[in-house]
Amino acid sequence: MIFKQKFRVHWVDTDIAGVMHFSNFFRYFEVCEEEFYRFLGLDLNQLREAHGVLPPRVEASCQYKTVCHFNDNLEVILKVREVRSKTITYDFQVLKEGEKAAEGFVKCIATTLDWKVVELPEDFARIIRNSAI
Amino acid sequence: MIFKQKFRVHWVDTDIAGVMHFSNFFRYFEVCEEEFYRFLGLDLNQLREAHGVLPPRVEASCQYKTVCHFNDNLEVILKVREVRSKTITYDFQVLKEGEKAAEGFVKCIATTLDWKVVELPEDFARIIRNSAI
Amino acid sequence: MIFKQKFRVHWVDTDIAGVMHFSNFFRYFEVCEEEFYRFLGLDLNQLREAHGVLPPRVEASCQYKTVCHFNDNLEVILKVREVRSKTITYDFQVLKEGEKAAEGFVKCIATTLDWKVVELPEDFARIIRNSAI
Amino acid sequence: MIFKQKFRVHWVDTDIAGVMHFSNFFRYFEVCEEEFYRFLGLDLNQLREAHGVLPPRVEASCQYKTVCHFNDNLEVILKVREVRSKTITYDFQVLKEGEKAAEGFVKCIATTLDWKVVELPEDFARIIRNSAI
Repeated sequence: MIFKQKFRVHWVDTDIAGVMHFSNFFRYFEVCEEEFYRFLGLDLNQLREAHGVLPPRVEASCQYKTVCHFNDNLEVILKVREVRSKTITYDFQVLKEGEKAAEGFVKCIATTLDWKVVELPEDFARIIRNSAI
Repeated sequence: MIFKQKFRVHWVDTDIAGVMHFSNFFRYFEVCEEEFYRFLGLDLNQLREAHGVLPPRVEASCQYKTVCHFNDNLEVILKVREVRSKTITYDFQVLKEGEKAAEGFVKCIATTLDWKVVELPEDFARIIRNSAI
Repeated sequence: MIFKQKFRVHWVDTDIAGVMHFSNFFRYFEVCEEEFYRFLGLDLNQLREAHGVLPPRVEASCQYKTVCHFNDNLEVILKVREVRSKTITYDFQVLKEGEKAAEGFVKCIATTLDWKVVELPEDFARIIRNSAI
Repeated sequence: MIFKQKFRVHWVDTDIAGVMHFSNFFRYFEVCEEEFYRFLGLDLNQLREAHGVLPPRVEASCQYKTVCHFNDNLEVILKVREVRSKTITYDFQVLKEGEKAAEGFVKCIATTLDWKVVELPEDFARIIRNSAI
């Protein structure tokens, strides 16, 4: 499955070079992931409060193909790469007028609230895994 | 008492206009407040964990006198304006090469971890009050 | 005129206290202002590139009434308070489920690209002034 | 050569999980890079203004080994991996009490102010290359 989220580049996202600061792509990736959970009826708050599980990132990576300017309309595309018992990996593409502006991935791992690695709650993992079919 | 904290304006703090984004001044105010607590031997973590008290902001304000550029060396000056039983107000000045670049204030209030207003822990309030003499 | 912009509180907007960091309200104010310009057919990029004019903030202020949590749906309401020859002041309210979570204002001033105060371009000022009727 | 920069985790860097948000590591990498340039007598502003050259990132990556809490003292270690005619790659380690909290890299490329790829100014590249001996 592919999930799409639109963003507009705001003034505060830009830096002195006149383009979006590279660290903000990772913020966009995460916001897209949040909206993907919402779309599936999942919720990180519920994961945290009902299951005592957090999904800290163990790896994040981005390749930048072109710069993004103030007011640019971007589309972030999330694709589930892999759901394992303890980890989920998402691939992301950032499109700007149909062309690839960036691509990357984020891998998260399930932990308790005090950061011990655990299995993902079965329901949570299954819903994401099924979305990928 | 006056507490001073030095900052340098980093690339990520700037925006397309080539200067520090106005919202970052509030981040600097807060970092300066944190270092002020550390200087006094206080700690927001301890306030939270030992006393179950948080200091959410009830008001924040800043007047900007001049723009701050990438690489500028700034000095943020914190002055305790008022410590009351439930609130503390800090005044801030931002100096750039000795001249005032901005000034503002932040008022915080003591609450429980679920945001009910309470009295500040006596020791905490006293140490800050005494620092102001 | 009143302009409304919806926001959702994202994970990255929150802090260790579990609520939106107070500095982010100012980011929301500005994004709302940008969308207001777009709604009026105006554009800060055009102001900058065609007129050589920037709108740096000279004052920003916010009063916080309640905390905003991860996933909260917020509505930011912009109201034009005053358009003068060189300055514009906007009032903001942040609503959370219909209740006021915060309110504030931002005052900006027209400058050249090297920060000399100038008059707002007449068209730009008129369109905003007329929107306020 | 190895360049070290100390950081403290501030309240604003944390998120609802009580630890530093993963995107902030990339901000720290960049601040460390800026201070490295300063240490070498180089300056991104000079690169931009005197040479008309910008160093946009083409890739950024981070692996997270452990979480970083509010008030943690971190040390970011920069190591020059490779200086080529148009690109520079930096490796980063983040240490927390001597243990590795994260590691990553950032690759940047030289461009003109309108983002055409160019050669790095010879002096700039040589000074960084020599620092790596």
